[in-house]
Amino acid sequence: MPYELFYWDGLQGRGEFIRLALEDAGADYRDVVREPGGMDRMMSCLKGADGGAVPPFAPPFLKDGERIVSHVANILHYLAPKLALVPDDETLRLDALGLQLTITDFVAEVHDTHHPISTADYYEDQMEEAKARTTAFLKHRVPKFIGYFDRLLASSDDRQAKGEERHAIGRSFTYVDLSIFQIAEGLGYAFPRAMADFDRLYPNVAALRDEVRQRPRIAAYLASDRRLAFNESGIFRHYPELDRDPD
Amino acid sequence: MPYELFYWDGLQGRGEFIRLALEDAGADYRDVVREPGGMDRMMSCLKGADGGAVPPFAPPFLKDGERIVSHVANILHYLAPKLALVPDDETLRLDALGLQLTITDFVAEVHDTHHPISTADYYEDQMEEAKARTTAFLKHRVPKFIGYFDRLLASSDDRQAKGEERHAIGRSFTYVDLSIFQIAEGLGYAFPRAMADFDRLYPNVAALRDEVRQRPRIAAYLASDRRLAFNESGIFRHYPELDRDPD
Repeated sequence: MPYELFYWDGLQGRGEFIRLALEDAGADYRDVVREPGGMDRMMSCLKGADGGAVPPFAPPFLKDGERIVSHVANILHYLAPKLALVPDDETLRLDALGLQLTITDFVAEVHDTHHPISTADYYEDQMEEAKARTTAFLKHRVPKFIGYFDRLLASSDDRQAKGEERHAIGRSFTYVDLSIFQIAEGLGYAFPRAMADFDRLYPNVAALRDEVRQRPRIAAYLASDRRLAFNESGIFRHYPELDRDPD
Repeated sequence: MPYELFYWDGLQGRGEFIRLALEDAGADYRDVVREPGGMDRMMSCLKGADGGAVPPFAPPFLKDGERIVSHVANILHYLAPKLALVPDDETLRLDALGLQLTITDFVAEVHDTHHPISTADYYEDQMEEAKARTTAFLKHRVPKFIGYFDRLLASSDDRQAKGEERHAIGRSFTYVDLSIFQIAEGLGYAFPRAMADFDRLYPNVAALRDEVRQRPRIAAYLASDRRLAFNESGIFRHYPELDRDPD
């Protein structure tokens, strides 16, 4: 039975972190809301009417048979052993989940660059505050988060010295690497001016991003119509007035 | 060997969700930064100098022997089976982790009520934006999150009808219940005016909060000097100018 991913149609959003894992593994899955009647099914699940003791708080969530798993990091933690996207080792699984939760925090901060005051209001109603928040985000938060991942990739098993691939977790390619790829791509889309020096400042993240782009199943996915383009309904939005040259 | 919790001293903060689980279980643990030399040890771990393949991004993190686990939800997911604070069932463990991640999201939103623009600036430099964000938070986000938990507690095994205790996960008391207690207490501290109707609006959360207060080990902990008072260094801060009567 295929995995069933439930997430809003029309944007990459948080669902994209799950899609990348499913696509990289060549897993059999359905993107339910993109099918006829899918939105009704998602709403039914959110109301707790579709089985499962705990209705999800919000998309994305995953159905695997009758089991429902919610939140990106939880879904990836659950799926990764089945998709061979995490080592079969408890310590490394916990390391991966911890790293994914750092990505979760970063994604929330990316979202708030364009919605710093209220998700119930339009971006256009909080543009001034968005400009201030984005300025602080680009100055302080991107270096803190992406610098952390860059150091992590640089240090992992001295792979850089050996010219080997960089991985967040030990010697194995994991879902964390796919998520780092996604935030690198998203930052480049949202803030092309501010990220002009990205590859120089964060060479290990940039190298990982480029390696992930070339993975056969990921390359096929990115070229397919299943990969929606980044757009201004998603987490990473390109509003030129928020972008800026580096200090 | 006792568990070692690493978190900033002087505030409850995110570390408190871990303390509550350790205290409720009567676990042997050390609050490292409150000991002589503890801050240096925490900083050493954050720099990756204290063992562990993946240095934590930020406190809190937990050391269990040589193993390091970071992020509140990950730490609780790891500890709970050892502390008998989650059922021995994979589906229920995933349900608990999903709920804890909803709490993680809520806690981040609470933090941003007083720091909507930048964590690098003082609250006093973003008071106007904090007022706007808090207004939206109290109007939209508290009802969405706390209403969700209230419905969850109401529906769990029809316990309400039987006059039994309410639990987030099935028939068992879990770490999620302790975390719901903490956010209920925190909201009451930060926004006493806005939460005047809390117990009427969210009777199941309020009942759970009161039940948790009475658990013997929690009652002893709350009366001890290990439980710091809420204060304006933490996540839940009482700034009277941000509080407001309900609409």
